[in-house]
Amino acid sequence: MKIAVDAMGGDRAPADIVEGVVSAALERRSEIVLVGHEPAIRAELARSVNGHRLDNLSVRHASQIIGMGESPATAYKTKKDASMVVAARMVKEGEAAAFLSVGNTGAAMTSALMEMGRVEGVMRPAIAIPIPRVHGVTIVIDAGANVDCRPEHLAQFGVMGEIYAQQIHGVPNPRVGLLNVGEEEGKGNELTQEAFGLLKGSKLNFVGNIEGRDIPNGSVDVVVCDGFIGNVVLKFAEGVALTILQIIREEYRKGGPVALLGAWLSRRVFRSVKHSMDPATFGGAPLLGVNGTCIVGHGTSSPRAIRNAVLVAEKMVALNVNGRIMDRLRECNLARSRQ
Amino acid sequence: MKIAVDAMGGDRAPADIVEGVVSAALERRSEIVLVGHEPAIRAELARSVNGHRLDNLSVRHASQIIGMGESPATAYKTKKDASMVVAARMVKEGEAAAFLSVGNTGAAMTSALMEMGRVEGVMRPAIAIPIPRVHGVTIVIDAGANVDCRPEHLAQFGVMGEIYAQQIHGVPNPRVGLLNVGEEEGKGNELTQEAFGLLKGSKLNFVGNIEGRDIPNGSVDVVVCDGFIGNVVLKFAEGVALTILQIIREEYRKGGPVALLGAWLSRRVFRSVKHSMDPATFGGAPLLGVNGTCIVGHGTSSPRAIRNAVLVAEKMVALNVNGRIMDRLRECNLARSRQ
Repeated sequence: MKIAVDAMGGDRAPADIVEGVVSAALERRSEIVLVGHEPAIRAELARSVNGHRLDNLSVRHASQIIGMGESPATAYKTKKDASMVVAARMVKEGEAAAFLSVGNTGAAMTSALMEMGRVEGVMRPAIAIPIPRVHGVTIVIDAGANVDCRPEHLAQFGVMGEIYAQQIHGVPNPRVGLLNVGEEEGKGNELTQEAFGLLKGSKLNFVGNIEGRDIPNGSVDVVVCDGFIGNVVLKFAEGVALTILQIIREEYRKGGPVALLGAWLSRRVFRSVKHSMDPATFGGAPLLGVNGTCIVGHGTSSPRAIRNAVLVAEKMVALNVNGRIMDRLRECNLARSRQ
Repeated sequence: MKIAVDAMGGDRAPADIVEGVVSAALERRSEIVLVGHEPAIRAELARSVNGHRLDNLSVRHASQIIGMGESPATAYKTKKDASMVVAARMVKEGEAAAFLSVGNTGAAMTSALMEMGRVEGVMRPAIAIPIPRVHGVTIVIDAGANVDCRPEHLAQFGVMGEIYAQQIHGVPNPRVGLLNVGEEEGKGNELTQEAFGLLKGSKLNFVGNIEGRDIPNGSVDVVVCDGFIGNVVLKFAEGVALTILQIIREEYRKGGPVALLGAWLSRRVFRSVKHSMDPATFGGAPLLGVNGTCIVGHGTSSPRAIRNAVLVAEKMVALNVNGRIMDRLRECNLARSRQ
């Protein structure tokens, strides 16, 4: 199995990407191809490999880079030799099974969509994001690929989210909820009212409407929503977590010597808390429904996040997530027939 | 100034409501009318007043109660003598200046809308909610009154949010942001793209699109969004705060004796943190844009929350929030002319 990694995307590329990929290559046997500016990658490799022999790591030159601020559509159209476009094309051409980028998310999604196409039956690929809770995670889908959705799209997100939660996060029979403003059937806007009917009529373990407070409280495993709201929720979650930790820090500061001693004795606790909420732990977010595996990640991804993303990509391919999505859509009568 | 309080709505009515109202009546000079089942209210009053003479507190009997689970539209139509309907009607008839309920939120909003009508120029009244941040609060509007919105509605929410942040939370020149999936102009769906233009062309201190992470980070004072997303964000905020505190507790539990001592020395810090994030501190949420003051609150509101809600209602009337909204809408060319 080959995994094509965009070595040039992200805030600390290629250094952190190479470092993360090397640590994945050392512990796994999948072949990893670093795609991007070859001399820059080789220079980082020389630093990271540290004398190890890594037969399962290679470099593929790509002459262009898509920057974080570029318009995805324009960049994709004009930079055909950009590292992320080349990496996505390798999947299309069967040279790799998975594509991974922590660069410009819009451009990475465009590259994946345009180069790889969609899994049979899927209307709209969607981003699945794990939100940490006290035990395990809740998968929010769509977290930003589609800002305007139709009810059938949401129903398909339910299917893709179920397979992802089951295969990658090990939840046997994922409970799927529809994000809404109240629990009763009939709540919400036109979109959620119609999506409710489709999800209820499917074979999913659909628990009905859920509210914002249910996302982190463990009452569901998969939260279905349109990509606008999913994106707001995802970014708000990051913001709230930081704000609460800051409020705590501020209160410790105001609390005098007793509080300071308390803070000092609590430092390991807070380190674990931060670790358990760190997006790096989850290894990026898959764009589910594209024909091939595609993982996108935060531009600030650490080497640990990159390593974990490689592992998730590997697992998705090995467990045939796409094949299972295709089958499950048919089983649920939610596959779109080819026109 | 008279404030009509629905004494029968909420999880611990009328006990907690009477207790909260009594503490407001003891420290303020506004007249407060407790509306609901008179014998039940008098029994609680006897317990709460504790020998004090309260000339500014009276009771108005209402024979019906709207339950938390009832359909707002049906309940409003069939229960004309329900406590919250009677309280809202008192505002309409000039007997009171403000109406307050922590009962069935939908029914309270329906009662306010149907009985009081709208401030001149306002198309859709909206709920404004304060979200705590490290210093101060961010106002999210609309937090649930309108699940489907047009661009003009969002622009008006910006005006109402500005006046509320300024008058009630003391922010001199509130920065208004439009909740979106990216910062650049042109991001988002049709609704936000059009609303952007209207807000940009207004006289508000409009800072442009903001993302979920900006809600609690202090980069804006007012967040404009439709009521669907605002409701999800509000409830998600409550859920995330609880989850993070639970994750912290769990890590303390796993941390052995050092962590336990740390927890013990940190107990005051956590009490302050909880206090600063407690919705009770903010005293409910106004339904801005109705012709009269209306405050709705969580069913679990404590006596402290009720007391604070009475104070907010009083302040809104005293500072003529509605008159200012009317003027500002005209000034911004966003008032709807009467057909």
